[in-house]
Amino acid sequence: MAGVKSDGSDSGLVLLDVFGSPFAQRVSIALAEKGLAYERAEQDLTAKSDLLRRSNPVHGKVPVLLHDGRPVCESLAILQYLDEAFPGTPPLLPPVSDPYARARARFWGEYADRLHFCGKRLWLSAPGGDGGEAEPGARAEMATVLRALEAELGEGDFFGGAAFGYVDVAAAPFAAWFLTYERHGGPSVAEECPALAAWAARCSRRESVAANVYPPEKVHELVQEYRRWMLGRK
Amino acid sequence: MAGVKSDGSDSGLVLLDVFGSPFAQRVSIALAEKGLAYERAEQDLTAKSDLLRRSNPVHGKVPVLLHDGRPVCESLAILQYLDEAFPGTPPLLPPVSDPYARARARFWGEYADRLHFCGKRLWLSAPGGDGGEAEPGARAEMATVLRALEAELGEGDFFGGAAFGYVDVAAAPFAAWFLTYERHGGPSVAEECPALAAWAARCSRRESVAANVYPPEKVHELVQEYRRWMLGRK
Repeated sequence: MAGVKSDGSDSGLVLLDVFGSPFAQRVSIALAEKGLAYERAEQDLTAKSDLLRRSNPVHGKVPVLLHDGRPVCESLAILQYLDEAFPGTPPLLPPVSDPYARARARFWGEYADRLHFCGKRLWLSAPGGDGGEAEPGARAEMATVLRALEAELGEGDFFGGAAFGYVDVAAAPFAAWFLTYERHGGPSVAEECPALAAWAARCSRRESVAANVYPPEKVHELVQEYRRWMLGRK
Repeated sequence: MAGVKSDGSDSGLVLLDVFGSPFAQRVSIALAEKGLAYERAEQDLTAKSDLLRRSNPVHGKVPVLLHDGRPVCESLAILQYLDEAFPGTPPLLPPVSDPYARARARFWGEYADRLHFCGKRLWLSAPGGDGGEAEPGARAEMATVLRALEAELGEGDFFGGAAFGYVDVAAAPFAAWFLTYERHGGPSVAEECPALAAWAARCSRRESVAANVYPPEKVHELVQEYRRWMLGRK
C-alpha cells in the first residue's frame, strides 16, 4: 500500500487524489519537492470509495494524505504536515526562527484559494474560447487577486524569494489556469501582471510542477468539457 | 503604543479589533491564555482607519496583530504566529513532536469557521426570537456542523483533550452564538449535542473567554440590532 522514498525506504504515504484537481496537485508537487515517493490512489468523486469516505468523513474530498494509514486532510494542512513529519526534507515554510515570514506565507497560501473561487465564477459565467462576457464583478475581482499576488511576489523569482516554497506550491496549480481565466473574460495576466506571468512560466518549467499539472491548453480543454457537462445537468 | 506582558516587559503587541467580532476574539482569548498583554486598538469598520488599511491592505478586516509594528493578519495564522513568536508561553497547538495532532487541530480550527458562515445563513434568513423559519438547508447544515464538532470533541473536556488548545480558541467565540443560532431556526445544541453544550458552558466559565466574549443573551440582542440595520439598508 505504501510509497517508497527516493532513497528506497518505505515512506508509508498514500495520496487520495483526482488528477487535475489543483488542491490535490499542491500535495503531489510538495511530495515531489521533498523527494518523497508515495502511492497514488486515484478517486472517482462521482462514486466515492469507502476509503475516501472513511478518510475524510467531514468533506469527502481530495486530497487526503494517508501516512501509515492515518488520514491528513485539507491541502494546506497537508503541506504543513509534510514539513513537520519529514523534517529532513527541503522545507516549504520559512524556518521556525522566522515566525513573521511563516505567518505571511500562511496568509498568502490561503489567499491563493481565491484564484480558484474567483476563477470558477469566470469560467462558469462566460462561455469561453473567445473572451465572452463574464459575471459582472468576477473580472474585477480576478484583477484584484492577480494584482495582490503580483505585489506580494515583488521582484523575487518565487514567493519564497530565491526558493520555491509554501506559497509557490499553493499557487502553482492555478498558474496553469491563467489562460482559462483569460479566455473566460478574465484579465490578461501577461499584460497586467508581467511578474506573475513570468513566475507562472518559471513554475511550469519546474519538474515537480510539470509532472503534476496539465499544460494550460489542456486545462482549458478540460474546463470546457466539464462546463458543458455541469451546465447540461441543470 | 505597545502592550505590556504580565511580567512587566514590553510585548510590543497591538491588536486591531472590533469588540464582538468572533474572529478578533480568537486572538484576544489566545493572548489571555498566553498571559501576553497588549494594546487594543478598536476599529470602526464603517470608516476604516489608515492604520487598518495599511496593516491589512488585502482584506481591510480585523483582527490584525501588530508585533513591533509588523502586521500579522487572519485569525488562525495569528494563533500559530503567537505559538511560534512566543515559545515560552503556553502553546495552543499540540507539540511539534506530534505532527499528526497538529494537522488535525489545523483542520478542525478551520472547520470552526463554518459555525460562523452557517450561523449567518440562519440569523439572516429567520426573524429570530421565536425560532422562525430559516433558509431551507441552513438548519440541516448547522446540525451537520454541530454533530461533526460533537464527534471530534468526544469525551474530552476540550478539543485539545485535557488542555484548552487551538481548536478550543478557534471555536469558543462561536459557543456564545449557539443560543442565537437556536433562536433563528437552528437545532437545540443542548438536546442534539450535549457534549458540545457542556464544552460551551466550560468555555464560558474560563477567564480568557469570559473577559473577551459577550454572554449569549447579549450576542442575541446585538445580532437582532445588527440584523435590523443590515436589512434596513437593502
